[in-house]
Amino acid sequence: MPNKVQEFNNYRTQMNEKILNDDGNKIIKRIFNLDTNAYMAGALDVKTKELLGLVASAVLRCDDCIAYHLETAHKQGLTKVEVMEALGIATLVGGTIVIPHLRRAYEFWDALEENDQQ
Amino acid sequence: MPNKVQEFNNYRTQMNEKILNDDGNKIIKRIFNLDTNAYMAGALDVKTKELLGLVASAVLRCDDCIAYHLETAHKQGLTKVEVMEALGIATLVGGTIVIPHLRRAYEFWDALEENDQQ
Amino acid sequence: MPNKVQEFNNYRTQMNEKILNDDGNKIIKRIFNLDTNAYMAGALDVKTKELLGLVASAVLRCDDCIAYHLETAHKQGLTKVEVMEALGIATLVGGTIVIPHLRRAYEFWDALEENDQQ
Amino acid sequence: MPNKVQEFNNYRTQMNEKILNDDGNKIIKRIFNLDTNAYMAGALDVKTKELLGLVASAVLRCDDCIAYHLETAHKQGLTKVEVMEALGIATLVGGTIVIPHLRRAYEFWDALEENDQQ
Amino acid sequence: MPNKVQEFNNYRTQMNEKILNDDGNKIIKRIFNLDTNAYMAGALDVKTKELLGLVASAVLRCDDCIAYHLETAHKQGLTKVEVMEALGIATLVGGTIVIPHLRRAYEFWDALEENDQQ
Amino acid sequence: MPNKVQEFNNYRTQMNEKILNDDGNKIIKRIFNLDTNAYMAGALDVKTKELLGLVASAVLRCDDCIAYHLETAHKQGLTKVEVMEALGIATLVGGTIVIPHLRRAYEFWDALEENDQQ
Repeated sequence: MPNKVQEFNNYRTQMNEKILNDDGNKIIKRIFNLDTNAYMAGALDVKTKELLGLVASAVLRCDDCIAYHLETAHKQGLTKVEVMEALGIATLVGGTIVIPHLRRAYEFWDALEENDQQ
Repeated sequence: MPNKVQEFNNYRTQMNEKILNDDGNKIIKRIFNLDTNAYMAGALDVKTKELLGLVASAVLRCDDCIAYHLETAHKQGLTKVEVMEALGIATLVGGTIVIPHLRRAYEFWDALEENDQQ
Repeated sequence: MPNKVQEFNNYRTQMNEKILNDDGNKIIKRIFNLDTNAYMAGALDVKTKELLGLVASAVLRCDDCIAYHLETAHKQGLTKVEVMEALGIATLVGGTIVIPHLRRAYEFWDALEENDQQ
Repeated sequence: MPNKVQEFNNYRTQMNEKILNDDGNKIIKRIFNLDTNAYMAGALDVKTKELLGLVASAVLRCDDCIAYHLETAHKQGLTKVEVMEALGIATLVGGTIVIPHLRRAYEFWDALEENDQQ
Repeated sequence: MPNKVQEFNNYRTQMNEKILNDDGNKIIKRIFNLDTNAYMAGALDVKTKELLGLVASAVLRCDDCIAYHLETAHKQGLTKVEVMEALGIATLVGGTIVIPHLRRAYEFWDALEENDQQ
Repeated sequence: MPNKVQEFNNYRTQMNEKILNDDGNKIIKRIFNLDTNAYMAGALDVKTKELLGLVASAVLRCDDCIAYHLETAHKQGLTKVEVMEALGIATLVGGTIVIPHLRRAYEFWDALEENDQQ
């Protein structure tokens, strides 16, 4: 049975393909392209950039964006305590309305760790 | 089996009835009433107004509002390429946090077209 | 079968425990602690504070936060008409994008009243 | 010399007149009209409604809206401690990004009290 | 004496030059570039796109973005009544917190018309 | 003549003192206290945390919060290129509505560097 991570990735991949195969929308395609470039190593390293993307997603309260950055942060070897410290700052800056997204972030992180053990 | 469009409309209709039959809340009823009037033809035509409502909904990241305006835009004869160009502007102005809503917008638009073919 | 209220409370309790048992995140724990204190009686009474929390949650469009404050408002004896008048102000200040959250608030309130009758 | 309160009221009055004398925009006029009605006594009293408007304005970080509700709250006899307790909830729910608005709210409240003494 | 429009344009031009001459930030430069392309004629005409940009800016409550789109809308020959009808939809969707931005939009539009007469 | 940095710090210090000397508001004082603790070294170092605070402030479009974190980032020895790369991610995630805040961030950073040379 697919867990939260796989469900998320399946839907994301399927819909992104639809969007990128739609010839009509050049602006959206270029934004997707920028999105890939922005998180590559530069003056800041990849781990730091992933945490920046995560915190931006958390304060703007975008569950799918949080899930995406949690997965990339996990792949890059960021630890749970580092990720949760970043989300602590997000909750302070963004307020208690971030808490429901924090619950779902914990659930998603658990699913990421569960997948490691398989 | 009801598709995304029918599910959305059923829930929306059922709950709007509850809200409008609740005698207590005059302010909410008047906002509902304004909402109907605001999208009628005036200095701007209905198609333009639907696109304005769609882009406002997209940058404010309200999936149900996006779905509602997609359905009306579709009924008014706006094409997929027009709608997606409007959503491209929304994604640029509102940032990559709009992308998850864009995925769901593509899915909903497909359900609208699927219904046409039945 | 658990209704909306019980589902919400079960998930909320389970995930809050995970968060509070995670030794790493002192900032988040202290925010949770503040959240409990902020709604206690002070210069303003508990009912007024619950309505303030509800309206803040509604204009920021946080369904889980709305559900939480609806439940507490209901426990504190606030009536449906008082709660809906507060949500009317939220819809006016926050705009029609609040309406989908209003639908879910009505549904949740009905589930709260349904639980009373059991 | 006009203080903060008078400057704010002068600009607000002057521009509202322009907006209300502009025959073109019926929707905006009706929203202004609703705005007057929403804060009148109903199931909730005027003081509570002003605090709801204040907290909604604070979490949405609208300085002019905060100033308007501070002035009305002050006229209605709400005390500084009541108003600041409401803004405390707003800062908790909306996060530390509310703090700069809190500074300006304190400054505006002082200007309101200063006017009392003249 | 420079009016609101000239002040806005001077600051905007000066700072954009600084940003675009800063070699370090490729992502920001590419976003600026996208921003130019997104409002060019495509499936939708330039006037419609300017209104979409204006409404997106208004509901997200960005005064400088509103000013920019008002100026471009004015150059494209959109009339005051068309622009204000679009802002009416923005105020309905985004709520009464949009009203202070509406006041400043009226003021900026007057400055645009004043410049025409010189 | 005080520059932007000094003006900002003077107002900020003066109003924070008023807020912290106001005995009535325990919640606000505790949030201020949390705000100091959250950016101290932990699993993440101080520089990373400042960048997280900066990006959170930028996507939530809080000029005073951006200024505060720019000043602290500058004190911690973060370079302009690191800071602007972080703001590039913020502009991508938060959209073109972040650009006016980016202009003011560049202006504030220049004032910080100008102060160094005195």
